[in-house]
Amino acid sequence: MANMANSEACASPLELFNSVTTQGEHVRALKAGNASKDEIDSAVKMLLSLKMSYKAAMGEDYKANCPPGSLAPSSNHGPDAMITEAEEDFVDPWTVQTSSAKGIDYDKLIVRFGSSKIDKELINRIERATGQRPHHFLRRGIFFSHRDMNQVLDAYENKKPFYLYTGRGPSSEAMHVGHLIPFIFTKWLQDVFNVPLVIQMTDDEKYLWKDLTLDQAYGYAVENAKDIIACGFDINKTFIFSDLDYMGMSPGFYKNVVKIQKHVTFNQVKGIFGFTDSDSIGKISFPAIQAAPSFSNSFPQIFGDRTDIQCLIPCAIDQDPYFRMTRDVAPKIGYPKPALLHSTFFPALQGAQTKMSASDPNSSIFLTDTAKQIKTKVNKHAFSGGRDTVEEHRQFGGNCDVDVSFMYLTFFLEDDDKLEQIRKDYTSGAMLTGELKKTLIEVLQPLIAEHQARRKEVTDEIVKEFMTPRKLSFDFQ
Amino acid sequence: MANMANSEACASPLELFNSVTTQGEHVRALKAGNASKDEIDSAVKMLLSLKMSYKAAMGEDYKANCPPGSLAPSSNHGPDAMITEAEEDFVDPWTVQTSSAKGIDYDKLIVRFGSSKIDKELINRIERATGQRPHHFLRRGIFFSHRDMNQVLDAYENKKPFYLYTGRGPSSEAMHVGHLIPFIFTKWLQDVFNVPLVIQMTDDEKYLWKDLTLDQAYGYAVENAKDIIACGFDINKTFIFSDLDYMGMSPGFYKNVVKIQKHVTFNQVKGIFGFTDSDSIGKISFPAIQAAPSFSNSFPQIFGDRTDIQCLIPCAIDQDPYFRMTRDVAPKIGYPKPALLHSTFFPALQGAQTKMSASDPNSSIFLTDTAKQIKTKVNKHAFSGGRDTVEEHRQFGGNCDVDVSFMYLTFFLEDDDKLEQIRKDYTSGAMLTGELKKTLIEVLQPLIAEHQARRKEVTDEIVKEFMTPRKLSFDFQ
Repeated sequence: MANMANSEACASPLELFNSVTTQGEHVRALKAGNASKDEIDSAVKMLLSLKMSYKAAMGEDYKANCPPGSLAPSSNHGPDAMITEAEEDFVDPWTVQTSSAKGIDYDKLIVRFGSSKIDKELINRIERATGQRPHHFLRRGIFFSHRDMNQVLDAYENKKPFYLYTGRGPSSEAMHVGHLIPFIFTKWLQDVFNVPLVIQMTDDEKYLWKDLTLDQAYGYAVENAKDIIACGFDINKTFIFSDLDYMGMSPGFYKNVVKIQKHVTFNQVKGIFGFTDSDSIGKISFPAIQAAPSFSNSFPQIFGDRTDIQCLIPCAIDQDPYFRMTRDVAPKIGYPKPALLHSTFFPALQGAQTKMSASDPNSSIFLTDTAKQIKTKVNKHAFSGGRDTVEEHRQFGGNCDVDVSFMYLTFFLEDDDKLEQIRKDYTSGAMLTGELKKTLIEVLQPLIAEHQARRKEVTDEIVKEFMTPRKLSFDFQ
Repeated sequence: MANMANSEACASPLELFNSVTTQGEHVRALKAGNASKDEIDSAVKMLLSLKMSYKAAMGEDYKANCPPGSLAPSSNHGPDAMITEAEEDFVDPWTVQTSSAKGIDYDKLIVRFGSSKIDKELINRIERATGQRPHHFLRRGIFFSHRDMNQVLDAYENKKPFYLYTGRGPSSEAMHVGHLIPFIFTKWLQDVFNVPLVIQMTDDEKYLWKDLTLDQAYGYAVENAKDIIACGFDINKTFIFSDLDYMGMSPGFYKNVVKIQKHVTFNQVKGIFGFTDSDSIGKISFPAIQAAPSFSNSFPQIFGDRTDIQCLIPCAIDQDPYFRMTRDVAPKIGYPKPALLHSTFFPALQGAQTKMSASDPNSSIFLTDTAKQIKTKVNKHAFSGGRDTVEEHRQFGGNCDVDVSFMYLTFFLEDDDKLEQIRKDYTSGAMLTGELKKTLIEVLQPLIAEHQARRKEVTDEIVKEFMTPRKLSFDFQ
């Protein structure tokens, strides 16, 4: 997966402006320097795509020498321009861009992607079907969108089987708390529905996209698997696999990959993922590898040769393009379409419109952080929706919609009443930013410490067992 | 392999003209019918590519309403036009086109592909190195071109190891005698050099290119393997594998596929293979799968994790584009470039410029033909270089350069003196076409009958053993 947890790329308007400018200069340099046609074509394509992203994020065309915020002579934007900006977020598996401090507008994304909102009715139905209180990620709209979840529930209520599939792109050893979101939720789904789960580590993808060796990518897959296992998955119902490993161990996986690859053209992946002629044939064909685990006979050791077992994929919404493609192909090759549950993105400490980066330790809370590091990061870096002075804050109150500490609490503070009280107190000004941050620190410190303790228990033998193709225990009809 | 034995597609000038005309009409119909931009783009691309093929084969641009042979108003072609035509043959893994009854001009192909001619000196060196008389395919220029064969011999003389790799694209159960050429030669190489051999059955490729199910493609792979085994390969030194099967059984194969895929762009495969945006991502990424067996660690069961064992690939020259790509990638991923030995194409019964087709039983001698069928086919369909009447033939003699029966004898009659006598007698007119055909029939009938007898001995157990990943017996340092 590019990143099932959440995408780490959000560029500010000025950053976007600067990348268009730089790329424009690059194209001119190439043309001046008699570069090859291919090289120039590819640079021009990139320039056009950057300009499109700029327009999508800013609501107006890029104009040289007019950075965002400056007075563009030909612009007739009134106060509505800000709204237009927020309207056009950009989301794909590699880039998530918004200029709004509140983050992406998810209602608009649902309309654009053609998925369905997870509404109260669906949440109630999940509660009735499982007999369990819905997870706070559902209650709070963190998992906010779905495809065909009602079909999964129909099947479940008729005692028909389904299985869960999620994944991670192991781009480094370092995972942050945001990466845990889909896994925390998937564990809950596994517990309440009592179903088997497959977790794909796309080390092949990371090898293809990043400057990594095969061994490094595989090493990250194994290290990341330990953090995933530490979320508490049931070893008897969970199979974790590295693509690099599993492709050479499974009689079913490659066959499904080839089936999918036969039914998807370059035109299609170009349209969905924005690939260009300069991309490697590995990247171009990779989407089939992320698609294949959506079909049960990719796992003959678990499901035999059954092709009819419904798959449910919990993931961040930026992964949806892969599964739109998968759902498009499924009927052509005689398989059921996978259902999906989509989560929102996890914001960077610096704010929902900034870029979270594994190379910047201050952009998030990492799973290896000490209690002290957590305290310092939250206090120093978490973007605040509070006022400039205590007096102003007391008088006008803080803004929870842009306050990253409050956003993090919606992810990790399970107590609804307490969260609501914080929201009220912070909005009214009764609670100061320092107090809000203190609450978050007190939630995160034990959460990370407990994760670290559980991860320490995950021995190499346990990882090996999770990653061995084998029967899983479940009772399907 | 698209077809390591030889390509089956040679279009006549008129067929080429007609395909351009038809495609032009198709484009106009799409535009008139408001087809999608993609559909039109792809049809236009195909039209341009057909026009290019036409120009390559004919030496002049396609002109509507001026089929080849007609008087083109703007053409200033004198008698040289025929030479120009013959000069520009078209060869890629799916299409072999020439307008000459003598077939492709192989000397020109060597220059165009940048390979080296197998000259007397190299043949002598092979004789010295192996202590064996060179195979008649070498002596007669049927294997006529190579890349780095001297390097293989250097290594061999220094007791350094190498291995052989060849393959077949199993597009149907029916194999004809032409398909045996690379296998007959590879068996000889295995015998005289005493080296291990891997044979790739590209059932995945045939599934991607043809209207076949995975099971059908795999079934053809197994059936074709029986014909290959019947060539007499040493079971202790030979591993035959279906891609669909082996990908899921080998810890090394997929890793090399991904490595290659990372280092080849769509631009490159577009340039080499002529893929378009409408091609499936399976086709686009397939060249990496044909490339991977060129590297020894794709076979850990045979070579362990050694990456330094030189590979030698005997194949028909139309497969060279795959291995030009492979040789380009090899240094980028730290592996030695494979060496190659290229064969000419096996002509169709109807002549070297016509199309050999598995769906036309009269276009070649099939491995399942009875003695009677062989006799009838040769007598009825083998294109003759003889004269129209016995009197003329006696007076002016026949033309061995275009006579298909004589061409087949150069492939299958091992006795050099006898072949030379036939050439002399037929050229002088002393030998009539009926006598030449009779000689060919007497060579082919026992050859096919013996092949059939050997194939009958190939049990499912023997196939299974050849196709099981396992150690092979050889002594490498």
